[in-house]
Amino acid sequence: MDLVPNVLNGDRRALARLISLIEDDGPPARAALAVLYSYTGRAHVVGVTGAPGTGKSTLVNELAKGLRARGATVGIVAVDPTSPFTGGALLGDRVRMRDLAGDPGIFIRSMATRGSLGGLARATGDAVKVLDAAGFSVVLVETVGVGQAEVDIARTAHTTIVVEAPGLGDDVQALKAGLMEIADVLVVNKADRPGAAQTVRALEVALDLGRNSAGHTGATAWRPPVLKTVALDGSGVGEVLEAIAAHRAYLQASGLWDRRERERAREDLLRALEGELFSHLLCEVGEKELEDWVDRLVRRETDVYTAVQALMGRCFVST
Amino acid sequence: MDLVPNVLNGDRRALARLISLIEDDGPPARAALAVLYSYTGRAHVVGVTGAPGTGKSTLVNELAKGLRARGATVGIVAVDPTSPFTGGALLGDRVRMRDLAGDPGIFIRSMATRGSLGGLARATGDAVKVLDAAGFSVVLVETVGVGQAEVDIARTAHTTIVVEAPGLGDDVQALKAGLMEIADVLVVNKADRPGAAQTVRALEVALDLGRNSAGHTGATAWRPPVLKTVALDGSGVGEVLEAIAAHRAYLQASGLWDRRERERAREDLLRALEGELFSHLLCEVGEKELEDWVDRLVRRETDVYTAVQALMGRCFVST
Repeated sequence: MDLVPNVLNGDRRALARLISLIEDDGPPARAALAVLYSYTGRAHVVGVTGAPGTGKSTLVNELAKGLRARGATVGIVAVDPTSPFTGGALLGDRVRMRDLAGDPGIFIRSMATRGSLGGLARATGDAVKVLDAAGFSVVLVETVGVGQAEVDIARTAHTTIVVEAPGLGDDVQALKAGLMEIADVLVVNKADRPGAAQTVRALEVALDLGRNSAGHTGATAWRPPVLKTVALDGSGVGEVLEAIAAHRAYLQASGLWDRRERERAREDLLRALEGELFSHLLCEVGEKELEDWVDRLVRRETDVYTAVQALMGRCFVST
Repeated sequence: MDLVPNVLNGDRRALARLISLIEDDGPPARAALAVLYSYTGRAHVVGVTGAPGTGKSTLVNELAKGLRARGATVGIVAVDPTSPFTGGALLGDRVRMRDLAGDPGIFIRSMATRGSLGGLARATGDAVKVLDAAGFSVVLVETVGVGQAEVDIARTAHTTIVVEAPGLGDDVQALKAGLMEIADVLVVNKADRPGAAQTVRALEVALDLGRNSAGHTGATAWRPPVLKTVALDGSGVGEVLEAIAAHRAYLQASGLWDRRERERAREDLLRALEGELFSHLLCEVGEKELEDWVDRLVRRETDVYTAVQALMGRCFVST
């Protein structure tokens, strides 16, 4: 298989093919990743997350353009929660490609869920590694900041950007509390809309509260800047790029970069072990017996926990 | 423990306490659920899902009021994705309680994530069973329709309502494709806003496309109605309640109710078995050895899949 050398050369078709293999999660993907892993660890991985309606896809596109103008090469992994069902991810790619197409220094890929969300987190992490190994100097990971799994994905980045927008309504605002805790840079996008100043102030207040309660008072601590952008016309995007660069410098100077790399490696290992164990769990229970238990459940003659106790003893890790 | 008889009597403090135990997922919750299970199977479980900003919490409140006026008792389980971090769920409850407080025929509970999203799905399913056993005739399950786990939760309902709103921006619209496939009733809320008619039309077109491609052409098939509401002033809520009742009648007349009950029982069993197996997985790997593997990963001397292969053989289901 010449997939690996082609990926290392940045060949776009090889990249696309390997990431599809990763989504399928079979032995060919694992073999390729095993070889590619030694080439990883150079890219700056930047997560961009926020609720629907904040305009984060547009912001990601603008960040990619700005990074290109500054000489970086950019891989983009967009995690799309619609994908378990239909072609949402592909459509998303097409819309994006209009703007960034034809630039060999940019590679964009939407990740589809095939199966579980745990699978999506794994596949996203592996796609980031592929782009890292292929030599992209920055990898942007875009996720919808709703749902634990999506937040977990954002969390694996070196630098996490949380995108807000003014006037999105109460249940969107309620998400802020959770996202604040993982933000390294806060961006209020659509800042030409009414209420932008209040949103900035609210975020600043929330930051102060969070920092006091968590005891982040050291002189070397990073305070997430709160920046305003209008991604549609590019306003403020330069400041976000500067904040990303400053955060990278901070991580490296403070030793946090190495610590995050180590945490990421441990996470990767435990998650992969978990996944592998899970896929090797086997229960020696026949179809007919399972259906008998379901019958008894439907008739309320037993309950789920009793049934599980009866079946558990015949399950094992099959290696 | 007199928790179970008190739950069966609809005692609110007992309900709240048992659902907290369910979130903690320990033996006391399981023992109670094993007893309660035989009292379940009577409630009409209605999922209400939609993107942030669609106003689905307000709609759920209005549906609950309308159901009460029609003589039903209503349990509400609100699944809150912010909860892994902070007190979002509790605040949500307080906001809701203002409106529905003091009515003994309504019980509201937000579910917090303690740990995994799989855990949230399980806990939500068990909370629904508790409210069912306690005699609530309708249980409304409210979830944010973003993220696979949230959609899975909505899926376990007898009747699933998908809430949209006009003008929420492209990435919200993109969610539609996925949610359409699980919708039994479609509601365009905030229908007094510009663009409501277009949103209705777009949903009707999407429905026609989906039905043709899926071959739902039988005379007995259910076509999801597309309804307009302004939940803030209650407009259109009556029609949604009629659609919920009509869908229930359809499920029962067609035999689908029994089929969904059976599928739900099988899902419950497999999910509980999975969870139990997972919590009994044990690897005989010392902390020091694990850290050695992490060191080697950080130095790129090995890769995750090689490490997993080395560790796998020492893992087993410990019963």
